[in-house]
Amino acid sequence: MLHFDCDYMAGAHPAVLQALARENAAQHVGYGYDDLCQRARQLIRQACALPEAAVHFMMGGTQTNATVIGALLRPTEGIIATDTAHISVHEAGAIEMGGHKAITIDGHDGKLAAEDVARLMADYHGDETHPHIVRPAAVYISYPTELGTLYTRDELSALYAVCQRHQLPLYIDGARLTYGLAASRDLTLPILARCCDLFYIGGTKAGALFGEALVCRDATRLPYFFSTMKAHGAVLAKGWLLGVQFKALMTDDLLLRIGREAVRLALRLADAFRAHGYAPLIDSPTNQQFFCLPNALIDRLHTQATFDYWGVRGATESRVRFVTSWETTEADIDALAALL
Amino acid sequence: MLHFDCDYMAGAHPAVLQALARENAAQHVGYGYDDLCQRARQLIRQACALPEAAVHFMMGGTQTNATVIGALLRPTEGIIATDTAHISVHEAGAIEMGGHKAITIDGHDGKLAAEDVARLMADYHGDETHPHIVRPAAVYISYPTELGTLYTRDELSALYAVCQRHQLPLYIDGARLTYGLAASRDLTLPILARCCDLFYIGGTKAGALFGEALVCRDATRLPYFFSTMKAHGAVLAKGWLLGVQFKALMTDDLLLRIGREAVRLALRLADAFRAHGYAPLIDSPTNQQFFCLPNALIDRLHTQATFDYWGVRGATESRVRFVTSWETTEADIDALAALL
Amino acid sequence: MLHFDCDYMAGAHPAVLQALARENAAQHVGYGYDDLCQRARQLIRQACALPEAAVHFMMGGTQTNATVIGALLRPTEGIIATDTAHISVHEAGAIEMGGHKAITIDGHDGKLAAEDVARLMADYHGDETHPHIVRPAAVYISYPTELGTLYTRDELSALYAVCQRHQLPLYIDGARLTYGLAASRDLTLPILARCCDLFYIGGTKAGALFGEALVCRDATRLPYFFSTMKAHGAVLAKGWLLGVQFKALMTDDLLLRIGREAVRLALRLADAFRAHGYAPLIDSPTNQQFFCLPNALIDRLHTQATFDYWGVRGATESRVRFVTSWETTEADIDALAALL
Amino acid sequence: MLHFDCDYMAGAHPAVLQALARENAAQHVGYGYDDLCQRARQLIRQACALPEAAVHFMMGGTQTNATVIGALLRPTEGIIATDTAHISVHEAGAIEMGGHKAITIDGHDGKLAAEDVARLMADYHGDETHPHIVRPAAVYISYPTELGTLYTRDELSALYAVCQRHQLPLYIDGARLTYGLAASRDLTLPILARCCDLFYIGGTKAGALFGEALVCRDATRLPYFFSTMKAHGAVLAKGWLLGVQFKALMTDDLLLRIGREAVRLALRLADAFRAHGYAPLIDSPTNQQFFCLPNALIDRLHTQATFDYWGVRGATESRVRFVTSWETTEADIDALAALL
Repeated sequence: MLHFDCDYMAGAHPAVLQALARENAAQHVGYGYDDLCQRARQLIRQACALPEAAVHFMMGGTQTNATVIGALLRPTEGIIATDTAHISVHEAGAIEMGGHKAITIDGHDGKLAAEDVARLMADYHGDETHPHIVRPAAVYISYPTELGTLYTRDELSALYAVCQRHQLPLYIDGARLTYGLAASRDLTLPILARCCDLFYIGGTKAGALFGEALVCRDATRLPYFFSTMKAHGAVLAKGWLLGVQFKALMTDDLLLRIGREAVRLALRLADAFRAHGYAPLIDSPTNQQFFCLPNALIDRLHTQATFDYWGVRGATESRVRFVTSWETTEADIDALAALL
Repeated sequence: MLHFDCDYMAGAHPAVLQALARENAAQHVGYGYDDLCQRARQLIRQACALPEAAVHFMMGGTQTNATVIGALLRPTEGIIATDTAHISVHEAGAIEMGGHKAITIDGHDGKLAAEDVARLMADYHGDETHPHIVRPAAVYISYPTELGTLYTRDELSALYAVCQRHQLPLYIDGARLTYGLAASRDLTLPILARCCDLFYIGGTKAGALFGEALVCRDATRLPYFFSTMKAHGAVLAKGWLLGVQFKALMTDDLLLRIGREAVRLALRLADAFRAHGYAPLIDSPTNQQFFCLPNALIDRLHTQATFDYWGVRGATESRVRFVTSWETTEADIDALAALL
Repeated sequence: MLHFDCDYMAGAHPAVLQALARENAAQHVGYGYDDLCQRARQLIRQACALPEAAVHFMMGGTQTNATVIGALLRPTEGIIATDTAHISVHEAGAIEMGGHKAITIDGHDGKLAAEDVARLMADYHGDETHPHIVRPAAVYISYPTELGTLYTRDELSALYAVCQRHQLPLYIDGARLTYGLAASRDLTLPILARCCDLFYIGGTKAGALFGEALVCRDATRLPYFFSTMKAHGAVLAKGWLLGVQFKALMTDDLLLRIGREAVRLALRLADAFRAHGYAPLIDSPTNQQFFCLPNALIDRLHTQATFDYWGVRGATESRVRFVTSWETTEADIDALAALL
Repeated sequence: MLHFDCDYMAGAHPAVLQALARENAAQHVGYGYDDLCQRARQLIRQACALPEAAVHFMMGGTQTNATVIGALLRPTEGIIATDTAHISVHEAGAIEMGGHKAITIDGHDGKLAAEDVARLMADYHGDETHPHIVRPAAVYISYPTELGTLYTRDELSALYAVCQRHQLPLYIDGARLTYGLAASRDLTLPILARCCDLFYIGGTKAGALFGEALVCRDATRLPYFFSTMKAHGAVLAKGWLLGVQFKALMTDDLLLRIGREAVRLALRLADAFRAHGYAPLIDSPTNQQFFCLPNALIDRLHTQATFDYWGVRGATESRVRFVTSWETTEADIDALAALL
């Protein structure tokens, strides 16, 4: 069976698992105070060219988002996001459970436009009744977006400028960050790290067993963050597990290499579909590819490959998503192409 | 100065204030356990033809909405509402602060269509990822809507049928209920009370100093509701203040008479605008009337009358709202008409 | 029947009600932006000798406490209070519903000792595991306390000094503030206002129909507080109702005169009990008096007077509370004394 | 260096790690729907002799507690626990952040007495003001307790009977369950599983890398629990990681064997201290042992062994805790004993 469901179907990249197994015998201080976490934090700061940044490890994306947003906002404040944003759609209300509204704006292929945020802020302040309206107090985007698309450097800079003008911290959900950086023509990790206030480097979908690394340029923005994490159930007792994995991912560019290879294979996959007349629904340069396929073809492919519907199955054709990961091989793509 | 800003600009209807003043000298048990509250509850149950209904008094609309929705939903569940719903727009995130998402659907002149709720539920259950999506677990509408429009009996029945099919309690925000019932051709209080699970009768905007009366057909739906109200700061120490006001409003049809007269004057006001070429933006049969007027006219009217912008002021023309209340007089309408 | 249940049994003081009735005919801007509220705020600032203070009106004590504490604390932070504090015991979990722990310390006749707070802070910081413990981030006291007792000026100053040393905002619940100030030998409103960061002047229990006036010396401590109030359901549409009542209470020292007279009568009541061998349980100089009485006497008194148990009824004797208010008369005390 | 800080210092038991490494190459369905999780659930149901129980895997104790308690209680309700309970003391306010008060009762060596719960419920219902008090709506205990002590079968049965009488679901935090069962003279897993409504089997402190298995006898008690977990950030994308670890722990009694050996060594450790005149502070039969030692001895031991203070360091002597785990060896105990 071929697997294109998601980038978290496979276990850890062998180098990550080996590092973990190697450290398993040793005793480590708990809760992320250990040497492996310290070393991983250093490597991340270096890769971001942010020697002063705070780096916090958490276990998953929803947890990271809820903990960060809960720390950034005062109760009753809201966070701006697109209508397709993960926090709006696929986190079962974690943000609202924390007391905050996701203030949604229609995205452009999943991207939040700087001018749309500017207009929302102008409308908010221009409305006499605005004290009765949820105060927009932060901005959330995903890079790449939930639709696999990428902000250009100019788009991201423009968005960040609007955020700064309105004192809205900009937070980037980087669950698939490595695939975005691998595909980008003009963004690198140090540049991205300067075009926002906080972001996280996804591990779960990029070769770790689990784990995300939150990077916050100005550590004072998240006071007493350990306690906040603890109250969110986001502190891992054996915190070294996160440190050892990120240390491995940040060594010898492993994380970025994983991203590059998966992106290369995803583009080959898209070409294969295109060659059979199925152009991608969205022009995604990353490891997620979306198509609208006849149900008959979907059913046939499903006998030999796993992949997800994107929304509800239609009457005759349906939208589907194919995702590549560190485990996808050249042979997988060839095998899938042969089925078309 | 003429006043058309809102229906809460005036104080209490004289009959309400007199009743309150009369009882002021007496001592009353606290927290709503007094005889006046009991009597008011009886009158409300009679008017609704619901002898078993639970009736709870609270101080304002946002408070009532947050307390009810907080009691109806489990954390992480959401409530379906239109994009123009008061809870979505003008309650500063009270619902989210309570942990719940307002799941918005585009309204039709402010109304929630039964088929749209049915489709949302079908999409929810049809989506493989629905356990990751906020569970829709109740439905909120306003009657009349925030745009002054009314559900017909058929529309409301159809909506309630969908709600019952999906076990979604239907809650009606009746901040301006009396104006809706006064204007409706086919809905009465007893009928409306059977076309939903809970609703509140607005006092604040209908002749009381303040106060709303929540009616819940099946009292077991709100277990330990006094404690829930208390935790929401929604229990008034001198609870008799709410009882005495609702007793007055429910006596001799005062509430309904207030509604009828304000609606009659609002329709005269709309006719006056129409006669000058300004058709209402929305066909509202109730005490709120919306127009799009040239800014020059708005500025001229504002020298002699108060009324609100509806959204942001435009470049040359703007949307505005005029509201009548128990205090509006025939002479007020004449004076306004003379200014056009 | 004589009434000593609580100080919110009676309606409004006649001067308050008259002022309200006088203004009822007029139209007022909503939500507390009206002239009456502005004037009341001025009078309160003057009485406190705090010309720059922010003054916000809310409807009740639990609401005020929950809104203030919700605004002061970040999620996961806690507020220090005595074990008998209203927020710990009698607000049905409003503080916890807002996400905060009431960190309780045993009180001394209901009072929080400066040294106990200092010790708690030392223990917190001295405990290696403190990042796993709720961070104490504010202090709550009542003045007078729930047991009717008073802080001396020295006690309050010492407490405030500890709070300042640890950057803990000190918030005083003044539900019965006027009775405390009336009874105090060394505290006045301006002094108290400087011995804390925020406090509220209770109206509900002191001659208003309802209403509390929050005073915050440094307005920047409560940013966007209107929206916070709105989300807590704590904004009254006809906000002038609160302004007109506090204007009346702050005029000609009405509030303080109400306090003095009720305290005088409470002390006479205590003397009457003492004369019959029933010394007060607690040495309260304010309008609440606590006794432990034989059940037989309680039952006999209950035939002609209302008053509350303080806790659970005992087997042979029980703790009870008598409260005086603006409506209590000399004759009421005489009549009660005659029953002993 | 010898390690007695905690039972989460070591990595995973070799058998657990091997099983994980073996499955790492395969692709697994996400979010706990995989075969490994299904198999682990079966093994747990069998071990509990509860064929119908729901079993949910989560990542850590605080997360599990917050998710379960959030699902069990309605907002404003509270959960009864001892003053030393983990949820009261060491979870940074996670329970309160979820909206619930931890209603604390003084424990007896960390244990909650049935009669104390019965008295609290009697006091609650006997208090006229109880609608203003947080409603006790569930009970939390730890087994073993935070002090290493154990409930006897009779104690637990009596407690559960009180809970059932008052319709209070009883939830057992089993972070160290295996050490309790290993040490108990009269409780087995199937018996314990019938003496409560829900409990979790701790993996993190018992040989797993991380993970806890929640067991709920009546699955209807936790409706839509996946969505609740998701909103708490408690759903692991690569859920099979939890399944594979619990499958290993539940195979060949590994979990119980780990418990037995660690308990045996902990009792040897206690004997060694006792032989030198340092009797344990608490008579703990499990893998945690508490002593009060001279600071000089503590400092000397700390040169060769790690272990934690229990509270604040005293002037001349301090309370400390020693914990054994699956990695502790006979030789470790000998070495420590030699240092005394």
